[in-house]
Amino acid sequence: MNTHCPLCHEDGGEVVWRNHLARVVLAHEPDYPGFCRVILAKHQAEMTDLPLAEREALMAIVWAVEAAVRQTLNPDKINLASLGNMVPHVHWHVIPRWQDDLHFPAPIWATKPADRTRHQPAAADLAALRQALEQLAP
Amino acid sequence: MNTHCPLCHEDGGEVVWRNHLARVVLAHEPDYPGFCRVILAKHQAEMTDLPLAEREALMAIVWAVEAAVRQTLNPDKINLASLGNMVPHVHWHVIPRWQDDLHFPAPIWATKPADRTRHQPAAADLAALRQALEQLAP
Repeated sequence: MNTHCPLCHEDGGEVVWRNHLARVVLAHEPDYPGFCRVILAKHQAEMTDLPLAEREALMAIVWAVEAAVRQTLNPDKINLASLGNMVPHVHWHVIPRWQDDLHFPAPIWATKPADRTRHQPAAADLAALRQALEQLAP
Repeated sequence: MNTHCPLCHEDGGEVVWRNHLARVVLAHEPDYPGFCRVILAKHQAEMTDLPLAEREALMAIVWAVEAAVRQTLNPDKINLASLGNMVPHVHWHVIPRWQDDLHFPAPIWATKPADRTRHQPAAADLAALRQALEQLAP
């Protein structure tokens, strides 16, 4: 627990699944529907700060989220990233990408082209994603 | 092996380590000295396309590279990412970040601020990184 860390004090999104090690949140990034984050419960900056067993258990959750996103939204690509420059508390971004999304094929952090609208998955698919995440069994 | 995939036909950087599963390359990105990539040998687009044992073995290489980068360059943060929008062949970016680097705290893919010079690690530290990578034992 770090006094100044927002991920130690706030959920960082809508929590849809949680165990002792981590929580899964829907990020509700308006440009990227289906964007999920896997957030470590304890405060650690880097993956190699964790014992191997915890790294593997955390990645098992990331893979389960990736699988749920692929099964429900069928994106053209999955992007995975653990950055943490702003908030150095381990959290994984699991981002569904589509060829007609706002930045494709650039990373979502690139400047957005002026002539692009965001990709909008079907509401039923987003509901299926939420259900799959709530039932996650990594 | 995919006919049109550059990572099936080229090393994608300077190879410093290799096993049956993957290779580690120094990316030689001029703005990001010490930037490494872990590139899967076979052509697969997503981590969840791989059997769990291969995912874990690949991540063990990523952790070993992260540890080598931390030990030799002592960066302020490590950034990990598997994107593959341009080249959908699994490869992990392992990027040392410094508070005075070109984009910090933004991701390296963001637009670079006009008033920033790149961070330059000591040549001896970069040499130590190369040596550590050549002796990788994930």
